[in-house]
Formats: sequence, C-alpha cells, structure tokens
Amino acid sequence: MVDTDFFKKNGNFKLKVLAELSESKIANENDAEKIIRNVASLDEAAEGDITFLQNVKYVDAFRNTKASACIVSKKYIDIAPHGLALLISDDPNYAYAKIAEKFYHKDNTYISVATEAFVDTSATIGARSQVFPGAYIGPNCRIGKNCVIHPNAYIVNSVIGDNVIIHSGSRIGQDGFGYAFFKGKYHKIPQLGRVIIENDVEIGANTTIDRGAGPDTVIGEGTKIDNLVQIGHNVKIGKHCILVSQCGISGSTTIGDYTIIGGQAGITGHLKIGSKVQIAGKSGVMTDIADGGIVGGVPSVPIKNWHRQTVAIKKLAESKGNNE
Amino acid sequence: MVDTDFFKKNGNFKLKVLAELSESKIANENDAEKIIRNVASLDEAAEGDITFLQNVKYVDAFRNTKASACIVSKKYIDIAPHGLALLISDDPNYAYAKIAEKFYHKDNTYISVATEAFVDTSATIGARSQVFPGAYIGPNCRIGKNCVIHPNAYIVNSVIGDNVIIHSGSRIGQDGFGYAFFKGKYHKIPQLGRVIIENDVEIGANTTIDRGAGPDTVIGEGTKIDNLVQIGHNVKIGKHCILVSQCGISGSTTIGDYTIIGGQAGITGHLKIGSKVQIAGKSGVMTDIADGGIVGGVPSVPIKNWHRQTVAIKKLAESKGNNE
Amino acid sequence: MVDTDFFKKNGNFKLKVLAELSESKIANENDAEKIIRNVASLDEAAEGDITFLQNVKYVDAFRNTKASACIVSKKYIDIAPHGLALLISDDPNYAYAKIAEKFYHKDNTYISVATEAFVDTSATIGARSQVFPGAYIGPNCRIGKNCVIHPNAYIVNSVIGDNVIIHSGSRIGQDGFGYAFFKGKYHKIPQLGRVIIENDVEIGANTTIDRGAGPDTVIGEGTKIDNLVQIGHNVKIGKHCILVSQCGISGSTTIGDYTIIGGQAGITGHLKIGSKVQIAGKSGVMTDIADGGIVGGVPSVPIKNWHRQTVAIKKLAESKGNNE
Repeated sequence: MVDTDFFKKNGNFKLKVLAELSESKIANENDAEKIIRNVASLDEAAEGDITFLQNVKYVDAFRNTKASACIVSKKYIDIAPHGLALLISDDPNYAYAKIAEKFYHKDNTYISVATEAFVDTSATIGARSQVFPGAYIGPNCRIGKNCVIHPNAYIVNSVIGDNVIIHSGSRIGQDGFGYAFFKGKYHKIPQLGRVIIENDVEIGANTTIDRGAGPDTVIGEGTKIDNLVQIGHNVKIGKHCILVSQCGISGSTTIGDYTIIGGQAGITGHLKIGSKVQIAGKSGVMTDIADGGIVGGVPSVPIKNWHRQTVAIKKLAESKGNNE
Repeated sequence: MVDTDFFKKNGNFKLKVLAELSESKIANENDAEKIIRNVASLDEAAEGDITFLQNVKYVDAFRNTKASACIVSKKYIDIAPHGLALLISDDPNYAYAKIAEKFYHKDNTYISVATEAFVDTSATIGARSQVFPGAYIGPNCRIGKNCVIHPNAYIVNSVIGDNVIIHSGSRIGQDGFGYAFFKGKYHKIPQLGRVIIENDVEIGANTTIDRGAGPDTVIGEGTKIDNLVQIGHNVKIGKHCILVSQCGISGSTTIGDYTIIGGQAGITGHLKIGSKVQIAGKSGVMTDIADGGIVGGVPSVPIKNWHRQTVAIKKLAESKGNNE
Repeated sequence: MVDTDFFKKNGNFKLKVLAELSESKIANENDAEKIIRNVASLDEAAEGDITFLQNVKYVDAFRNTKASACIVSKKYIDIAPHGLALLISDDPNYAYAKIAEKFYHKDNTYISVATEAFVDTSATIGARSQVFPGAYIGPNCRIGKNCVIHPNAYIVNSVIGDNVIIHSGSRIGQDGFGYAFFKGKYHKIPQLGRVIIENDVEIGANTTIDRGAGPDTVIGEGTKIDNLVQIGHNVKIGKHCILVSQCGISGSTTIGDYTIIGGQAGITGHLKIGSKVQIAGKSGVMTDIADGGIVGGVPSVPIKNWHRQTVAIKKLAESKGNNE
C-alpha cells in the first residue's frame, strides 16, 4: 500500500476516467462508474484498488488478487477472478503508468534552484528546472527546461536538453581516462570535448559519463540510463536506448537507436553497435554488432550460439566422468 | 602500526582482560598478567602487540611474528613461536574484533546532525544518530537511533531502523528503473514504494538502492552491503546477508537470510533466492536457488558443476592441437 | 571542434614550436613556419588544425582528413594525403597531449580551498592544491601540493601525496568490509589502517578505496584509476599501474608496478599479482600471477589459453548439431 507520508494522493477516480487516460478499454461497461481509490500490486491490492498484470510469472497472483480492477491484455480475460473489473490494454505497463501518474503527484517537493546547490554564475538553468542541494553545476554549463538535477549530482563541461532527469551522485563531464605512456610514465591527455545530453534523457544514481577527448560524448534523446553505469569519452549513444545498471561502454564506441544493454555488460572501445541491438546482461562485446543483433556471452556471440555454448559446456562437464 | 593521528588508543590492557572480553582462553596462565599495548597484523606486530591468525595463508607469518600475544584456534598451538602468548578462540577474527574495539574508539569525531547536512524539516532523526556534512535526508524520512549517515549520502522515501551505518555517497530511495515502452518512447512509471532498512544494517560507499515501484524495497536486519552495489526496486533481502562489492540485484528478486553474494555477481529480476545460499563472485544468476544452494558461473550452476565445466573447457582447449 | 565556452585557447603556434615541445620531427622543413590554430580529431579537423593518428582503425580518416598538420609514426608517411604537414613521432598520442596542453589551459577555473568545502580544521592542504565545493576532508588528513580534489569527493583517514587528482564522488578511506561472524550475527571489525596515495596518482569519479584493516591501503606513484573502481582494504598497488573502469580488487591483494587491469575485471583477495601484468577486461583472477603475465577469462588463464578456450567452445557448440 502506498505510504501517503511519501506520496500524496490526488483523489478517487471512476474507472471510465482511468480507461480513457490510459488508452485502455473497459471489458464490461457495467464497471464504468466504479470508484477506484488507489493503485497497488496484484498481491497487495485490496477493495477499491486498481492493479495490473504484465509479467506472466504473476498469473497466479492475478487469479487471487483482491483488487477491484485490473489492467490486462486480452488473453487473460477468461481467467480473471469473478467480480474483478478489467481494463483491456495492449500494454498494461503503460496504462498503469498513466493511471499511477493520475493518482500521485510526480514529486512531493518542488524547488527551483536550491540556495545550497553550487551553481557557477556563468551556467544557465532553463525555466521550471530544479537543482537540489549539494548539486554542482560548473562554468558555462547549459541546462534546459523542466530538468531535475538531484542532490550531489555533478555536471561540468556539459550541454543538457529539456526534461532531463539526473539522479543523485551522477558525475557528468569529468576528464575522460586518456593518457600517453612515455618514458616510463603516464601523461594526461587534455580532454577538450563536452558531454551533450539530448531531451528526455534520464541518468541514474552514481552513473559516470566522461566528457569527450576532442569530439563530444553524446547521449541521444529519450535514452534511459540506470545506476552505476560507466560511459567513456567520445561515446555516442543514439535515441531511446536502455542501459541497465553497472554496464560499461568504453571510449569512442557508437551505439544506434533503440538498443538495449543488459546489466553488467561491457563494450570495448572504438566499436560500432547498431540500432535495435540487444546485449544480454554480463556480456563482453569485443566486435561490431549490426542493426537488430541479439548477443550474449564473453566474448559475445549471437544469443542462440551463446545458448548452444552453455548447453554444450554443461553436457561436456557431465560426460567427462568428473563426478567426485 | 596504527597511526594515532587517525585512531586514538584508550590505554594498555592485561592479557587476562582481553581474554575475557573476547571470550577466548589463555593457553598458558603464566601469561595472564602480561601487558598488551596495541593490536597489529602478524607481520607488522612488535613487542607489546597482540595479533591474530585467521587465514591459513598466513601461517608462515605466524611462525615469524614478533608480537607478544596472538589469538589462534587450537590447532595452531604446536607451531607457535617460542615465547608467544596465545589466546585460544574458535573464531580469532571475532576475538580480534572485540580486542581492537577495546583499544580504539569507534570514531574520532562525534557530531549529531551537522549544520552543513541537508535535512528536511519533516524528517525525523533518532537519538544519538549522526548526520555528517553534505548528507541529504528528504521529506518524511525516518532514521532510527544510533545511526551514522556519512557525508554526501542521500536518503529519500525511506524508513531506516536503529544502528544503521550508511557510508559516503550511498544513494537510497531514488526512483526505480521502470518504464513502459509505448509508441516509440519510454514512459516513466511512477515509483510509489519506499526503501525499508531494518536494524543493524551497514551500506557501503556509493551503493545504490532504488525504492519500490509499488511494494517496498527491503534490506533485512543485520545485512551488510559493500561498496558500489546495485539493488533494484522491490527487491527484498533477508536478515544477516553479505553482499560483496559491485554485485547487482535486479528488480523484484527476493533473497532469504544468511545468504552471501560474491563480488561482481549479478542476479536477474523476479527470482527467488533462498536462505544460506552462496553465490560465487562474477556469477550470473538466471534461475531460482533453493535454500543452501552454492552456485557459480554464467549462467550459474551448482558450484561443483561449475568447477567441472572450467576443468572440461581447459582440457578441451589443450586437446584440440590449437598450440601455435 | 573545441567549444571555447568550456576551454580557453592560448593562441596560435608555428608548427616548429609544436614539434619541439612534443619531441617530434617535422617531415618536410618547408612546413616549419606553418601557423597552426587548433587541435581536432582526424574527421572533425579543418584548415589550420593539427590532428593525430594513433589507432590503426582510423587510417581511412587519416587519408581523408582536412587538417593542416598531423602527428603520425614514420610508417604512415607514404599514405598521407597531399599537402598535409606531418610531425613524425614514436608516440603520436604523447606528442598530441603536449600540443593540446599548449593550446589549452588545464582548467578554466581556479580556486584554492572553496569555502563550501567541508575541511576539518586538523587537516592540512599543501600549496597550490584546490578543494572544490562539497568535497569533504576529514580529521588529520594530509593532502600534498598541487592536488585537485573535485566536488563531492570524500577523503578520511588518508595521507595523499603531491600532484594527485581526485575526481568527483570518489570515496577514500571509509571502513573496509570486515566482519566476524559469531553467534548468528556479523560483528564489525575495527578498521585501523589508512589510505596512502603517492604522488601523481589520479582517481576517477565515484571510485571507492577502503582504508586498511590494520596495515594501510596503498596506491603507488603515478598509478591512474578510472571511474567506479573498487579497491578493498589492505590492497597495495604499485607504481604506474592502470585500472580501467568498474574493475574491483578484493582485500589484501598486492599488485606490482606497470600492471594494467581491464574494465570490469575482478581480483580475489590475498593474491600476489606481479609487475607488468596485463589482465583482460571482465577477467576473474583467482590465483597469483607472476611478473609479465597476460591473462583473461573466468577463472583467468594465460591469454593464449583463453583464446583457445573460446575457439574450442565455439567449435563444440557448432559441432553438436544443435542448430534449430
């Protein structure tokens, strides 16, 4: 149950209102006037709540939910518990997102630029952008409109678009990791590029994005980056990509649009990764990947090959008579 | 040798005092009145110091130590150097911990809530809890008694028990990584759960713990989390678990009690990991694990099978005549 | 093109001046008086710019560059485009570093110790060292000369040499991860060592270095550490090592000089890793490595064996008739 100490509810809504705003359809028109009081997960939901089923793992929870309404895809209509009002959606996840947004304010605090933030006088902050205490914004940085810069985030040498969210402890625009080895020592190579973050990007907590060495490091529009991710200098990431926690992308690699990089995956430098690529968690990518490629393993191979490899190794280990 | 600039010593102690407080036994009662002046490691110890032997790798250092006393398990009595006073303990590590605590104050600074911390006026901080400069505690958070919140830690949407230590740069309670993909864009799903941290938990530097999407994210009593760990939304971790540095747990996975997760291991979302499970470092866990399971590899398998796999691959590579 | 909002240019220079300071040689003396106005990458360079070729992947960009001058090694002279002035260097990377430094100030801000930094009154900060806002320096820490401590860095229980750069969000000197398990609970072992950082070290953003348990944690002179790296307690790292992003070194491991550790690699505790060792990205090192060893894989093996293993597994998977 949502803790109203932390999240303020805006009121109750009729099911038909929620159906409309979530682009879903009420299965039974008799339910249209039903009053919905809150959102909840399948197993925590009670009378008055609306919930949703997205992951097939939770079908049992769906059969037993005590919610008053549930957002589901068409195929689950027949197994719905008796008396449960249904909203039919092709994407219950999305429908739920719109409904949860309706019930709850996005934020329970609003500040513009906190006096306890460290913002250089030459930096520009767009309208309705928030900068929380302890955040640092260096000289000449440009932050767009409707951004949220959370506490202790650090931004230097960067140009940031509109509607960008930067979570606590993100480090954006520091020197890339570039040295020339000469006469027994590593010499720092000046890093003269910037970080460019396009509109609608979200960057997770404690993620690090180095500025370019000469060219810029670029994060394309709508891309979402999780926590503790590392992005090296000169990397270009396309639009609407997903980078899951603890993955790392080495310097000068470029990535297309709509590509998904799994958790703890690593990508070597100077590679070209296409659009709509999927990289399994923990993969080690050492070669270019064409558009639409799906890979796994270290070094990464097409995902089917990787599955064959893991099966083959399993069989090999069993067949060797190595049993103790 | 302990640097007294950083760590203040409380005095010297008789060996019998140290034996009692550490629940260990003096091997030779003639040593009971010996004065011990400090703690030190086996190879750095000198006259007047007490040291300990825990790891079999250091038996040679034990034979050659210049300490005046050493905490050991029974089996090493016979190989002790002549003149070394022995404290016999089933767990020399623990006995050393109690003795080192006796010699040294836990902290060389005490503050309650620093004026340079950013604490929302609606947050509550329990008795004897410390909040260091640059830490951020958001609206309505509740922090228990005897907690230490180190500099630049960030806590929002969270309820925290007693005796909890949160190291510098930890990020607790930010949005989970949840989006609905719809019409070519990722839409943020409101994250309406909290982070609940039970008593006696310790959370390492720069570790990130996302708040729940609807249910809470929970860290059970006595669990210890190392640096740079990622905990996704809705994760439930049981009591007295150990999470080693740079491991990551994806959203909605549950973990039992007394489970140990090795460094850089990754666990997929929506899994059930039992109690007293051990997951080797760098493992990639993609399936549920029953109580007491010990696993390794990517994808993870029972540890014996993993060892067989690595042996089988080694042999295969050698047998192929691939030598250059 | 370098954005002069962020990086201030010092002027234009004759090619002969740049040749001299970069210890390189002008291929054609007729080019000596040529005026160079800026640095740029091969593909972004225009009339008046100097660029460089280091990585063989960019030979095509070299053939087509619009730069006025380029730093290259001897072997590329013959394929240089007509009219391009050449500086010949054994290490174009280094020559470029010196030239880029000449064109640009290292920093576009200079502060000494920011009033918004949290510096304990007992800490000492050497001449010409900078401490940025939000940085925290604890009791009795000693920071040498010409250091840069970036915003939100955290340093306690540490002694730091000269010319050290510590990036934003680094955590240095917190408790190591040490517990004694006793009667069903983990008991904290007092961590009584320091962190010693020698001269000319650079430490990346959000990297964590725990202080020693008894002995110190030591980072040797000239070693460069990337972002999000974890260094456990008691670790000793030699001189002039490179640690790439997201690698982790467990407690009490020692590492020699000139060793390179790849991204996301992990090293178990209590190991001895020699000098001039190279550890591939994503490796899992579980055994000692002699001087000059080159390893890869999990568990790591000599790199040639690792390549053989990956080839053998590939063949095995293909030969099994597993094709769908």
